[in-house]
Amino acid sequence: MKHNYLNNTPLESAQAQFFAAVTQSGFGYTEETVPAADALGRVTAKAVYAAISSPHYNASAMDGIAVKAADTFGASEASPLILPPEKYTVVDTGDPLPDGADAVVMVEDVITNDGGSVKLLAAVSPFQNVRQVGEDICMGDMIAPTGTVISPALIGAFLAGGVTEIPVKKRPTFGIIPTGDEIVKPTGAPKKGEIIEFNSAIFSSMLAGWGAQAKVYDIVKDKKDLLRAAAETALAECDAVLILAGSSAGRDDYTSEIVSSLGTLLIHGIGVKPGKPAVLGIAGSKPIVGLPGYPVSAIVIMEQFVKGLTDLYYKRERAREDAVSAVLGRRVVSSLKYREFVRVTLGSVNGILAASPLPGGAGVITSFTKADGILEIPQNCEGLEAGSKVRVRLLRPKEEIETALIVTGSHDPLIDEAADILRQKGYGFRVSSSHVGSMGAVSAVKAGLAHMGAVHLLDEAAGTYNEAMMQTHFPNGGAVLVKGVGRVQGYMVPKGNPLRIETIEDLRRVRFVNRQRGAGTRVLLDVLLKRAGVSPAEVDGYRNEKFTHTAVAASVAAGNADVGLGIYSAAKMYGLDFIPLWNEEYDFLVNENCIDTPAVQAFLDVLRSEELKNRLLEMGGYAVEC
Amino acid sequence: MKHNYLNNTPLESAQAQFFAAVTQSGFGYTEETVPAADALGRVTAKAVYAAISSPHYNASAMDGIAVKAADTFGASEASPLILPPEKYTVVDTGDPLPDGADAVVMVEDVITNDGGSVKLLAAVSPFQNVRQVGEDICMGDMIAPTGTVISPALIGAFLAGGVTEIPVKKRPTFGIIPTGDEIVKPTGAPKKGEIIEFNSAIFSSMLAGWGAQAKVYDIVKDKKDLLRAAAETALAECDAVLILAGSSAGRDDYTSEIVSSLGTLLIHGIGVKPGKPAVLGIAGSKPIVGLPGYPVSAIVIMEQFVKGLTDLYYKRERAREDAVSAVLGRRVVSSLKYREFVRVTLGSVNGILAASPLPGGAGVITSFTKADGILEIPQNCEGLEAGSKVRVRLLRPKEEIETALIVTGSHDPLIDEAADILRQKGYGFRVSSSHVGSMGAVSAVKAGLAHMGAVHLLDEAAGTYNEAMMQTHFPNGGAVLVKGVGRVQGYMVPKGNPLRIETIEDLRRVRFVNRQRGAGTRVLLDVLLKRAGVSPAEVDGYRNEKFTHTAVAASVAAGNADVGLGIYSAAKMYGLDFIPLWNEEYDFLVNENCIDTPAVQAFLDVLRSEELKNRLLEMGGYAVEC
Repeated sequence: MKHNYLNNTPLESAQAQFFAAVTQSGFGYTEETVPAADALGRVTAKAVYAAISSPHYNASAMDGIAVKAADTFGASEASPLILPPEKYTVVDTGDPLPDGADAVVMVEDVITNDGGSVKLLAAVSPFQNVRQVGEDICMGDMIAPTGTVISPALIGAFLAGGVTEIPVKKRPTFGIIPTGDEIVKPTGAPKKGEIIEFNSAIFSSMLAGWGAQAKVYDIVKDKKDLLRAAAETALAECDAVLILAGSSAGRDDYTSEIVSSLGTLLIHGIGVKPGKPAVLGIAGSKPIVGLPGYPVSAIVIMEQFVKGLTDLYYKRERAREDAVSAVLGRRVVSSLKYREFVRVTLGSVNGILAASPLPGGAGVITSFTKADGILEIPQNCEGLEAGSKVRVRLLRPKEEIETALIVTGSHDPLIDEAADILRQKGYGFRVSSSHVGSMGAVSAVKAGLAHMGAVHLLDEAAGTYNEAMMQTHFPNGGAVLVKGVGRVQGYMVPKGNPLRIETIEDLRRVRFVNRQRGAGTRVLLDVLLKRAGVSPAEVDGYRNEKFTHTAVAASVAAGNADVGLGIYSAAKMYGLDFIPLWNEEYDFLVNENCIDTPAVQAFLDVLRSEELKNRLLEMGGYAVEC
Repeated sequence: MKHNYLNNTPLESAQAQFFAAVTQSGFGYTEETVPAADALGRVTAKAVYAAISSPHYNASAMDGIAVKAADTFGASEASPLILPPEKYTVVDTGDPLPDGADAVVMVEDVITNDGGSVKLLAAVSPFQNVRQVGEDICMGDMIAPTGTVISPALIGAFLAGGVTEIPVKKRPTFGIIPTGDEIVKPTGAPKKGEIIEFNSAIFSSMLAGWGAQAKVYDIVKDKKDLLRAAAETALAECDAVLILAGSSAGRDDYTSEIVSSLGTLLIHGIGVKPGKPAVLGIAGSKPIVGLPGYPVSAIVIMEQFVKGLTDLYYKRERAREDAVSAVLGRRVVSSLKYREFVRVTLGSVNGILAASPLPGGAGVITSFTKADGILEIPQNCEGLEAGSKVRVRLLRPKEEIETALIVTGSHDPLIDEAADILRQKGYGFRVSSSHVGSMGAVSAVKAGLAHMGAVHLLDEAAGTYNEAMMQTHFPNGGAVLVKGVGRVQGYMVPKGNPLRIETIEDLRRVRFVNRQRGAGTRVLLDVLLKRAGVSPAEVDGYRNEKFTHTAVAASVAAGNADVGLGIYSAAKMYGLDFIPLWNEEYDFLVNENCIDTPAVQAFLDVLRSEELKNRLLEMGGYAVEC
């Protein structure tokens, strides 16, 4: 089997080498003209000067009468002055001053007499109540220098200055070529072996945020000549080219070869994780980037290299990154070979901002959608201990992070449903939830990493839920237990239960799919196994661990296992049969110091609401008080 | 003359009353569906759940061979294991696992033998190197709750979850009706009495930033029946209506009457400055806002009322405003009757952030384009003293403000040109300049309000420039004087100099336009008057003050004065004749602590650059060393 080796160029040297080559190539903006009204957010390509003054004539600043100021001298409330009709003109705000007039008396100071003359109660000085030519903008003044991002008010100033067409930096076009035999356009019903091509949509949107536009080409099969032809077309039509996937060293990965043949291959393989198998090259003055196929890897390369290309194009300084200092919630192990980009959630509990690394590899796009920030771990660092002070680059506004309600612990769709109800009611805060199991909830609330935790911990001896945990872990307070809902746990099995799985002993003869250590469902399984005298070693698949009820259901539905333990709603969603085994109490542990905060109170209110009750009844498998 | 009186409802009660009525009316979002790829920045109208799992089949996570894990048990480097061709399938990353296979051996651990069998150097466990169904997203999982702003990564997650059409909150449409007999569409060549209608472009752009779209109607003349018809059309076609101008109480101001006749007039006249003559009303569930004609007034009403409408529409919490604490650079006087919104520039000099109020009334749109922030002064407050600690709401990113180079003082276009050259060279910082005259520069540098100041101060006794000022104001250091350029000052007079103005004595018999107190040009005039024995009282227009050379030129060109004193380039720009009177030195005063900062050094480098020299030569009237 053919196998190419990649280099492992450190990030900084890869950036330095690539950006230097791109700069030297002459890559950069050209100019175009757009109507002022369409220029919002665009960047001026050169200085814009006023073509006319504003106002461009002497205009009345008031409703009143235009006069020659000298004619009014001496007028006062004590000795009013009469002006005959030929000495004044009625004007509205904005009207031009008639010839000879150089001031305006405001309507409040004018008394109309019979016969057309007026009585004045005050004198005016020259140019009083007049907007003189150029009061706002003078012809020839620079309204905005080169490189100004155009704001609404600036559009007004351009138009006021008689500039209707604005020279702006043309948006660069990045050609995007998705490649791969297995790749198909987005669909709700892909066939087995078909992978939905969603990377081009992600990257087009990222480019839009950086002021660039994407031109997405048709998917190209893994054939060298087809890919070469597509790359040539894109190079001819665009300012830069991104080739998606095909950047690794597998048998179908032609990107580096094609870059070499069309221009100069600069880098193949970068010391970052995820993101290693990237290709950086240039053809003429057009940069070419080969992005890894896994979305998370590719996003890292987009941020570290493609964003920089847009900065070079616009000739703008790289924006300072928004970052915060946080306490690391748990240990992170890192490879010495790579600079690692760890996706973390952030939570502000009792005023302390904590970062919790998210699980999931480079293929897990949801690890980016859930992430609040990125923690970078340098090359040559083995990792970081829990409690370390770390710097986290933000992926969301700081305010959104600081106000988020952190609900961690056992997985149940009701948390997402409650969060949705809160948003529907117009609450501004996000609910940030992660599936760390019931024991994870206990540790997180104890360590101040979460406001609330969802728990369903069965005490084997007492047969009660959560109470023993409270006595063991919070004997002196620190947390409050709030009653949640009852729910039924049971076997999820294929329709018709072909293997007739009903008892715990039946697990000895089938393939099981388990939940992760610390999950309440795993605790329940262990209690049930112990009571039945079944050893975990007897259960095939005991070590096949999933983090959610839906993941267990998906595994059974896909035939990866014959049975899993979980809740009714997950089984129903996947068209599985459900064999009830146990009724349990799913409760909420609340950090004592947070119980009175508006966010926690709002969440608890929703927990008792009709809306949530109705949703749970529809999902099924819950016991809710009516 | 007809005259209506306005109320003066305090801001908070106007907001409370208006927003309560709008909420009660049922004003709010409807839903529409957009393709996921077009959904960037849109807001989910309801929760989005995954329609399929991702991956939706068991996929190879590596290039290698798919096997049944049990077939590989025992393989190691020490005792390799041979697999015959029927026991494995070559797979690439992303390929589905063939039936019966449950793991993948990565290509690095496989040695190909002749005859199609392979040698394995390592065993794999079940599901090793396999992306199991649902690893990223499980069918039925909530991908995003209601009210989520859609990010690039979220678009990827939607598509990965098989959701190609996204339910989003429909963007509200705000109808904008510009009114006024004197108003014309944007043009570079308006006639006398024509006012360019640029407000609708400003407000459309502001609305775009708040997630709303504008529908701008044709300009309506000041006729009640026409305006009524336009308002009816807009109410039928849009979610809300903004009527521009016609909100005051002048004779042509029908907005409040029409709002009353079409719905309910809630407020007419608000205790804010600028912005007082606003109209707030509602017709059915459609809010109507009458905006003042002056752009700055209208922007205040847009921010205080129309932004809030978009929040109510989207059912989102009002975003926390970005604000900073700053030291007030000079005294501000305020009316007791109004909450005042003062436009300020901000400058960070030696680590202290100072706010300087901008001149210019409600008609001066450039006071908004130059402003870095808004300082609010409460109703019932007479003003604030210099040195007060104030809270300023930001109009620009904080970073941009903190890095800006503050160059204040005497007006000369060369400052703008130098700023433009810096931007062209790709420097990220802005040059924030204001025209406060040479003496303003001295005070600002002394008070730490500016990094640099432009000065041309003639010492009458010595006949030298700027040196006496340095001895008087900075005897013990604190500032450094950097030589700038020579430039010629002279009379600006209409083409052909019809009044034959040549000497200082000539000013006794013509209309003059002056510069403001503290301007170096004013100092020069005073010296010249004194030497010639001419008293200021003898000069007609001595008190008619302008802040820039171009404003003086514009005034002469408009016939508001017969002559002004200023620089050659301004006269040339306005087609005026120029009578040279005096050669002066235009230098830069630099705060001693800032002289070595990169921004100051970059500015000084540009001051000595070929680029600037060439621009000055083209403008004319400068003596630059070659």
